Amino acid sequence: MSPDVVAGREVSDVREWVRVGYRWRVIELILASASPRRASLLEQLGLSFQIVKPKIDESAEEDESVKDYINRMSGSKLKNVLDRPLVSPGSVVLCADTIVVLENEILGKPSCRDEGIDMLQRLSDKSHIVMTDVSLGQKGGDSGGKTESTETFRVETFVKFRKLNLDECKDYWKTDEPRDKAGGYGIQGRGAVFVESISGSYSNVVGLPLMETAVALSVFGISVFSPG
Amino acid sequence: MSPDVVAGREVSDVREWVRVGYRWRVIELILASASPRRASLLEQLGLSFQIVKPKIDESAEEDESVKDYINRMSGSKLKNVLDRPLVSPGSVVLCADTIVVLENEILGKPSCRDEGIDMLQRLSDKSHIVMTDVSLGQKGGDSGGKTESTETFRVETFVKFRKLNLDECKDYWKTDEPRDKAGGYGIQGRGAVFVESISGSYSNVVGLPLMETAVALSVFGISVFSPG
Repeated sequence: MSPDVVAGREVSDVREWVRVGYRWRVIELILASASPRRASLLEQLGLSFQIVKPKIDESAEEDESVKDYINRMSGSKLKNVLDRPLVSPGSVVLCADTIVVLENEILGKPSCRDEGIDMLQRLSDKSHIVMTDVSLGQKGGDSGGKTESTETFRVETFVKFRKLNLDECKDYWKTDEPRDKAGGYGIQGRGAVFVESISGSYSNVVGLPLMETAVALSVFGISVFSPG
Repeated sequence: MSPDVVAGREVSDVREWVRVGYRWRVIELILASASPRRASLLEQLGLSFQIVKPKIDESAEEDESVKDYINRMSGSKLKNVLDRPLVSPGSVVLCADTIVVLENEILGKPSCRDEGIDMLQRLSDKSHIVMTDVSLGQKGGDSGGKTESTETFRVETFVKFRKLNLDECKDYWKTDEPRDKAGGYGIQGRGAVFVESISGSYSNVVGLPLMETAVALSVFGISVFSPG
């Protein structure tokens, strides 16, 4: 396993070695996300990766459905990062878009205290859906920047909140935790005390469905369990 | 809020101040568990606590049912720690016992590689139940060591595994993660890639059901959200 088989590129610990036929190739994994929670989830799997933040317009189009919106977001993030010159041919880019849907309405990140408290009051004693669209793509070979292949899938989890009182919604806002969270709560933080039960993938609620992502990464030759 | 109202005890940052009538009392929370995962879950809630490891005989009695066993374990841990002289009157002790049940059989911690791999193969493509019995108790007043009150409850979560192949079970064993885990996997680690879905409380699968525990702690005057 010598560096010369990977077209002169330096070998670093942020790349995965994968056996292709009789040769070893290195596959670089790039997480195209600004979310520290997605990075923590990938670290949970023991995977090495680099982070490249996508730059896209996140505004919804008129009459666009919830599902069309997250599918377009996830796809746009993928294209935006795959097209960057700094992303080497052969690299695998992973990106995702997560939304919280209550009664067919998207709950985004609360813009202020009142909206944050109102969101929690609406979620109280009800079930909502957390949806993540995940897109993966491998950048084309040395000859050009063409994308060789992409994968996209969606995972949905039902989340049931217990009945909340106004005081605890106000107290929760003071913790600063809800400010940067879609739906105004973090299940991986103190927000866990509001969640009666979930049905489906837990990591999906945090921001990246791990079982499904691991299966998709294996299609691109990236394994959670190192070969050998 | 001066230290003299708490019967001469020093005020430290590992205690919770709670207003009782017109006076402030400090309630010390003690986690009676050797599990680093339970400590992490309590930290997730932002609670301050001390750890006292219970010393009990964990062997099952003849013809004892699964539910009787964990109820007895959880209660024995509570009594063992409440009875210690170092636990001050008024302190609240929290303890729990978690088991993995597949087809009415308890799966403990794997004793060796073969057992660990065999457990995963048995969990493959099936649903199992993770059960936690939680016991809380507050030590009686200054006059004696009598327990004032206790609470006990059980939480059950269904966990569905995807189909696993033998190679990934062998590879997972090499990560060392399964060795000290009931059922031979850790949902909060790489074991997450085996979990297709859960139904119920996620934190219960890790070792302590947070929503239910927070509700029970509030009965003893300990709040996740500080008063005021």
